[in-house]
Amino acid sequence: MSFTFVDPTSLDHHALEDGTEFAPRFDAHGLLTVVTVDDETKDVLMVAYMNAETLSLTIETGIAHYYSRSRKSIWKKGETSGELQQVVSLRTDCDQDCIVMSVHQTGRGAACHTGRKTCFYRQVTVENGEAKLADTGIPRLFDPKAVYGK
Amino acid sequence: MSFTFVDPTSLDHHALEDGTEFAPRFDAHGLLTVVTVDDETKDVLMVAYMNAETLSLTIETGIAHYYSRSRKSIWKKGETSGELQQVVSLRTDCDQDCIVMSVHQTGRGAACHTGRKTCFYRQVTVENGEAKLADTGIPRLFDPKAVYGK
Repeated sequence: MSFTFVDPTSLDHHALEDGTEFAPRFDAHGLLTVVTVDDETKDVLMVAYMNAETLSLTIETGIAHYYSRSRKSIWKKGETSGELQQVVSLRTDCDQDCIVMSVHQTGRGAACHTGRKTCFYRQVTVENGEAKLADTGIPRLFDPKAVYGK
Repeated sequence: MSFTFVDPTSLDHHALEDGTEFAPRFDAHGLLTVVTVDDETKDVLMVAYMNAETLSLTIETGIAHYYSRSRKSIWKKGETSGELQQVVSLRTDCDQDCIVMSVHQTGRGAACHTGRKTCFYRQVTVENGEAKLADTGIPRLFDPKAVYGK
């Protein structure tokens, strides 16, 4: 079973924002921004993209599938590392150009390719009038060299 | 005081992912994706964009300033509605092309222009093989017609 989605240009403003039709507004590259959050802690784990095919695969299988902009291909998250993401819920925003996906992060619990739980492990600080980054101390749950071989 | 940011192409992979230089990777349109979360509840409130100018303004003032893609201008969130966002923290991701901004949502507590706390008030459901949306029941905290006059 694969899913097709309603063309958002076929909906009026009210139907897009308050209706029950799921009409994702893919961008000029055919992509939708996806914010992935941990269903238990509500931490933002990562931000990535889906095209219509991987959005359909995600709904169909209950396992997160993204579209890799760098590899230009389907990206089944965790296929290499084992850190699959089981989908708990998908929510869309008012104008349907973005998704928040709640997941159960399997494996060692690391969504980030650096081995950390979340990609957002550095915080902006201001030092002597300059914006810098400070590590927030989120530990690595795996060694990326051992997992990815680089 | 305004902030300038390090050019990400001047950094190697390690410095970009593990360093202390803040080098936001603005896209081809000069924009960075920003995920705004409620600092208390950790709910994702909205997803929007900043350019270098509004990122600097946000850091400088501690009040969220986005770039409006539709109006092609600076968007001081809450300027019309009163729902200003006070910045608690800004975190960047591994490859620095995205920000998670934790905020205290002032006013009536509604980040969404529909009057709801969050833009993500509808959930994807599957009915008879079709992907549809279901309202999750998040209440409106203001009447958008009264606030925006439309």
